Amino acid sequence: MDDFTNPVIELLVKHRSIRKFKEKDIPQAMINTIVRSGQQAAFAFQAYSVLLSKNKKKNPFHAPLYFIPCLDLHKIEKIMETRKWKIVLNDLYCLLLGLQDAAYMAQNMVIAAESLGLGTCYIGAVPYYADKIAEQFDLPKKVFPLVGIAIGYPAEDPPTRPRYPLSFSLFEDNYPELDESAIENAKKVMDEGYLSQDYYKQLNAKISLTGGRKETFDYDTYSWTEHISRKLGQWDPSPDKLLEQFRKRGFDFSSSDKK
Amino acid sequence: MDDFTNPVIELLVKHRSIRKFKEKDIPQAMINTIVRSGQQAAFAFQAYSVLLSKNKKKNPFHAPLYFIPCLDLHKIEKIMETRKWKIVLNDLYCLLLGLQDAAYMAQNMVIAAESLGLGTCYIGAVPYYADKIAEQFDLPKKVFPLVGIAIGYPAEDPPTRPRYPLSFSLFEDNYPELDESAIENAKKVMDEGYLSQDYYKQLNAKISLTGGRKETFDYDTYSWTEHISRKLGQWDPSPDKLLEQFRKRGFDFSSSDKK
Repeated sequence: MDDFTNPVIELLVKHRSIRKFKEKDIPQAMINTIVRSGQQAAFAFQAYSVLLSKNKKKNPFHAPLYFIPCLDLHKIEKIMETRKWKIVLNDLYCLLLGLQDAAYMAQNMVIAAESLGLGTCYIGAVPYYADKIAEQFDLPKKVFPLVGIAIGYPAEDPPTRPRYPLSFSLFEDNYPELDESAIENAKKVMDEGYLSQDYYKQLNAKISLTGGRKETFDYDTYSWTEHISRKLGQWDPSPDKLLEQFRKRGFDFSSSDKK
Repeated sequence: MDDFTNPVIELLVKHRSIRKFKEKDIPQAMINTIVRSGQQAAFAFQAYSVLLSKNKKKNPFHAPLYFIPCLDLHKIEKIMETRKWKIVLNDLYCLLLGLQDAAYMAQNMVIAAESLGLGTCYIGAVPYYADKIAEQFDLPKKVFPLVGIAIGYPAEDPPTRPRYPLSFSLFEDNYPELDESAIENAKKVMDEGYLSQDYYKQLNAKISLTGGRKETFDYDTYSWTEHISRKLGQWDPSPDKLLEQFRKRGFDFSSSDKK
């Protein structure tokens, strides 16, 4: 890591997601330390709560711990009620700030967990089944599940995965024209990096083509560029399913002249 | 911290925002280490870029470094174009995932910076002047500034700030009914914690009352509950300004039947 390093940075740069966990339980005191480490992250208004399931049978990857950070305006509503205030701030900005509150907390939890020898994996599809989680955890209105985090002792030891070159991610003073060589170099780092680790093959993660497109990739050639293209190029074009999930939980992002 | 601790957790739980910085510059190799530590965070599709300004005169708090993590679909569009794909995934889910990609990266940057002896402060109002940042940094469409992070050597040494009790933030198996004592206890921890540090007084951060409400608080009584109530109870009720900022940058979250 260039000229600067220390144990914290060494931990950060060796992160990789873990999807296989030992059955070993995590003591409650360790859970408390992880969540307290999360809470100390910066916040706009602590607009989150964290749900926890220890149900290994049902948790993703049978993880001993499954956390679900939620956007939570319910608690702040209850607090404001005691002074006869109501939230008037628009739901979209509440989402932008609250999602950050939850995400900074979540990432601190991940780092704390990894520093204690645990492995972690984020699960991003949670907002699409917010209603099911709301039912399971008896969530009040104005609490919206944002993401899942599976945590446990690792039962696998994968390598760190590739990332874009620094020059493709950090732009000083102005956002450059991304020419063909910059694009090709970023693709190459990602595609060759994952291929050299048999990443998609081991996960059996190839996404099928729809709309009459003809398959021309196998696991010797299928990598980042193809995977991401198929995800973003074929999945859920309309926001309606997500908007409906938010609406059910009491959130509305539509323009005032469309309500 | 209960029974479990280590240098990483000690770093996480001593976080506090820094708003006064020394003039001392940060070497480029240290900046690279910070951003690389950020990049290794988990992601959905690396849907971010990080802008950087070293202009101390213009940066918030005259910080030597001012980073602006952005949601970035432009890069992935350029990559997908090389295989003749277009993004069809709805902008709302792209926002939810990309904001997390950017936030996990940003929080890793903050932790890496703090591990190197630097101080940090997030700035949350950035989305409201996305157009100005877009102009300043020459951003292409589909790049949206989400938050700012001021970083530099600390010229102040404030205490850590209070957080909600753990029992008000972590809910196992079900979200409880929050009774009066839970609410009052959470308020007390926050209000007394900030008051004992003269937090709002030192920042001179009291928010004025509007709508004919009569001021009954001074800096001996004005704390978290009052501050957050005035923010959320008086600020921008309509999402239109934010939606306009997103629209200018090429994002549309409206339901397909309202377009």
